[in-house]
Amino acid sequence: MDLETRIRASFGRQSMMQTLGARLISVAPGAVTIEAAIRPDLHQQLGYAHAALAFAIGDSAAGYSALTVTPEDKEIVTSEMKIHLLAPAVGDRLIARGRVIRPGRRLVIVSADVYAVKDGRETHAALLTGTTVPV
Amino acid sequence: MDLETRIRASFGRQSMMQTLGARLISVAPGAVTIEAAIRPDLHQQLGYAHAALAFAIGDSAAGYSALTVTPEDKEIVTSEMKIHLLAPAVGDRLIARGRVIRPGRRLVIVSADVYAVKDGRETHAALLTGTTVPV
Amino acid sequence: MDLETRIRASFGRQSMMQTLGARLISVAPGAVTIEAAIRPDLHQQLGYAHAALAFAIGDSAAGYSALTVTPEDKEIVTSEMKIHLLAPAVGDRLIARGRVIRPGRRLVIVSADVYAVKDGRETHAALLTGTTVPV
Amino acid sequence: MDLETRIRASFGRQSMMQTLGARLISVAPGAVTIEAAIRPDLHQQLGYAHAALAFAIGDSAAGYSALTVTPEDKEIVTSEMKIHLLAPAVGDRLIARGRVIRPGRRLVIVSADVYAVKDGRETHAALLTGTTVPV
Repeated sequence: MDLETRIRASFGRQSMMQTLGARLISVAPGAVTIEAAIRPDLHQQLGYAHAALAFAIGDSAAGYSALTVTPEDKEIVTSEMKIHLLAPAVGDRLIARGRVIRPGRRLVIVSADVYAVKDGRETHAALLTGTTVPV
Repeated sequence: MDLETRIRASFGRQSMMQTLGARLISVAPGAVTIEAAIRPDLHQQLGYAHAALAFAIGDSAAGYSALTVTPEDKEIVTSEMKIHLLAPAVGDRLIARGRVIRPGRRLVIVSADVYAVKDGRETHAALLTGTTVPV
Repeated sequence: MDLETRIRASFGRQSMMQTLGARLISVAPGAVTIEAAIRPDLHQQLGYAHAALAFAIGDSAAGYSALTVTPEDKEIVTSEMKIHLLAPAVGDRLIARGRVIRPGRRLVIVSADVYAVKDGRETHAALLTGTTVPV
Repeated sequence: MDLETRIRASFGRQSMMQTLGARLISVAPGAVTIEAAIRPDLHQQLGYAHAALAFAIGDSAAGYSALTVTPEDKEIVTSEMKIHLLAPAVGDRLIARGRVIRPGRRLVIVSADVYAVKDGRETHAALLTGTTVPV
């Protein structure tokens, strides 16, 4: 199974991704992009995208980046993830670009940048770094 | 406005909480509890509760704990949050218990423990620690 | 080899611990305590104990806590560690109390609290949470 | 006072930096480099550079990067810092390159990469991300 097919299959099994309207945009070795519209039902109390939306697509983009460097019979689970919320996430949609910082057999260290897109302009909304485990 | 009324009002404005089915369970000075059913549309690819659900209610429980020690004219925003996923989140629901680690005028350091409840038995599913800012 | 002997032997091989004047105070299953005097040559620019001192003994206390739950032929290495600096570390010495949050064959999740001791009174100076790996 | 003079003065007051043999290599707006020899008295139990050395110079490089974007009458203190240890720190010296991720009046979000240098070749040994506060 090719890389993108494998990741699309796993992504399709994450019902949370459908609930949040997240879409897998691109897959390359060590780098996966996911985006989601900032729907009115995904806000926090001030009317911006909820941190959990940035976390959800950032964590998934980072985790699937790890999966691209992991043997085919494995899944990836997140062990820990830190998110810095850098700016209010205002706009039409969020886009998360994940990447592998350090591949490994036991642990894959990953990162993701999340941007809020408004009128075609990107604002750096969040930075994630974390530890994923091939299982 | 009393503490619980104020926090319920803010919680009610977070549309993401409704989308995820999260409920505010209790409010005490420095300690807030939030729970959510592990609905089938909130899963990750292996059929457990998605990490983003644990993050969403853990971050909110921690953040509202901070709000209980913050002047009434302020809101709380999360600056950064780290989540350790300790065990697969299997069961009927997740329960997040937030607390204040260190109050402060500029920063409030917070923590939350998230438990997965199955047949009345709790498993420690996640631990969060983070930095919130009164604004 | 009993637990304490084994941990004292490993601690003795960490030349950094001697350089910083750190001492292993107690070893129990899942819990290790380390302390260090706040010597004048271990300060930051404002005259408090340097964050690196709190990190050094907090990370070691957490890591050796993990070693207490790890098979005898393994060492523990830290994969990631987050430290919250909660209060200026002023006083005579720092004391770090490490503990295991979640044991595991592949990963051991750990935590440590660091206190600054002044005139016999403890101030909570730092909180660490991290991921260690038996190798 | 120019930027470099100001940072050299603050660095000179950090007695821990002298104890660890750390040297300020370069200062530019939003970017500071610090290095330290991996002396035999700065090792962990397996003979590599101790994580606390990578933390010490990474945290300082990140913090001084924040100072370059902060008004002259302020100091910078670290509120929280996460370090990922990516590879054994083997070699002659460590070099830490700090940078500002997000400037701000209340918080400055920072990062640092730490490299171990052996025979002129750099290995990415650690990645730090954290929150600093102008005080």
